[in-house]
Amino acid sequence: MFRTMEGVGRHEVVIETPKHNETIPRMTDRQVEELLLICRQRYLDLHEDPHHQIIVIFKNHGPAAGISIEHPHCQIVASPVVPGQIQNTIDQARRHFDDQGSCVFCDVIERESRAGERVISDLGGFITIHPFASVFPFETWILPREHDASFGHIAPGDAKALGQTLKRVLLGIHQGLKDPDFNFVIHTAPCKDEREDYFHWHLQILPRLTVQAGFEFGSGMTINPVKPEDSAEFMRQTLASLDE
Amino acid sequence: MFRTMEGVGRHEVVIETPKHNETIPRMTDRQVEELLLICRQRYLDLHEDPHHQIIVIFKNHGPAAGISIEHPHCQIVASPVVPGQIQNTIDQARRHFDDQGSCVFCDVIERESRAGERVISDLGGFITIHPFASVFPFETWILPREHDASFGHIAPGDAKALGQTLKRVLLGIHQGLKDPDFNFVIHTAPCKDEREDYFHWHLQILPRLTVQAGFEFGSGMTINPVKPEDSAEFMRQTLASLDE
Repeated sequence: MFRTMEGVGRHEVVIETPKHNETIPRMTDRQVEELLLICRQRYLDLHEDPHHQIIVIFKNHGPAAGISIEHPHCQIVASPVVPGQIQNTIDQARRHFDDQGSCVFCDVIERESRAGERVISDLGGFITIHPFASVFPFETWILPREHDASFGHIAPGDAKALGQTLKRVLLGIHQGLKDPDFNFVIHTAPCKDEREDYFHWHLQILPRLTVQAGFEFGSGMTINPVKPEDSAEFMRQTLASLDE
Repeated sequence: MFRTMEGVGRHEVVIETPKHNETIPRMTDRQVEELLLICRQRYLDLHEDPHHQIIVIFKNHGPAAGISIEHPHCQIVASPVVPGQIQNTIDQARRHFDDQGSCVFCDVIERESRAGERVISDLGGFITIHPFASVFPFETWILPREHDASFGHIAPGDAKALGQTLKRVLLGIHQGLKDPDFNFVIHTAPCKDEREDYFHWHLQILPRLTVQAGFEFGSGMTINPVKPEDSAEFMRQTLASLDE
């Protein structure tokens, strides 16, 4: 009943810049592109080790987002097990594919594009949305329009467009929400599923505007006080004002 | 694909004391007992409404734990749906019962009692443990030794013993960890399952000592830097020092 397991895996830190107080919105387009290309390169290297089942790329910004080192950095964890939460997402996506014959994320992109009200940006092959029934206020997803299960497959040329979108969206969050702490995570398929039709990699940004409390821990349900339709409208206006 | 539902349910606030800066460890035994009896009474009332599928009783203490009102209070939410996280726990517990013929929580109590190293207190029919492979540092469970799926069935006489244990454990957390913010949650069976053999109600205390960061959001795995065997030893010493 009670068992422990030995640790296997890798944890890497990507230092984003030599400047101690730099932020992604202030970096040049080229710097952000290089950051993403380094993450891609590390993904591809880590992926060669057959122990690694899943590779999680993420960034913590600010104390409420759990920073442990102040200098700007991303982190990459390669784990020997696919965690239950990721497996559950994969299972749900596979079920949608079996039922509908299509990738659920491609369907989301198509429907969000048509609805429009939750779309923040749509440039260079990357669409940015505040997803329907967002779990967190101002939760933001950047999805490649072209289907691919794995971030590791991103074409070097697409890293530039992704970087431009990421930089712009993070600038909007910084300006519109007064520099909140935030996390971002690249959700990518487990290594064994990275050629599948049913998963679709994407980058999720979570501004830390609320705190999970007893109700959330007790129920697993989350209270989001902001409708994504409203937060998306606010963010579109914020981004438009940056262009003036 | 995109659907919304109307809200049904109840949200109640239990005011614990007339004193604005009171805490449970400073209350009298009788006050804590009464607080638990009120929660029991509200549970039994809310449970009468057939719309209510699950009743979550919880407390938030301090900003990191998500307080919204400063005056000491507990909250009760009656929900018309059983959230996925709770259903998953129920399903796992049912699977254990089907496989082993016993309640998984009764088995945990028996094994933790035998191992001893994660037990903090064992008084008046309530055992307090830092569970094996705790998700959070100093995560604490108070379980009734006698099997019952529902907190609503607690005998009025047992509310006194539960109150004494709760008060003492919260005092230990306050003294040993320097008054951390915390949540507690009473985990009880969904209303339709409250006579079942496979679930076992318990009270979970979560001191908010760490922050969930990008890795946790991205993977659903949680990093706990403290072994429950070590935190339990620390807490036993803290509680012993209170008695000197």
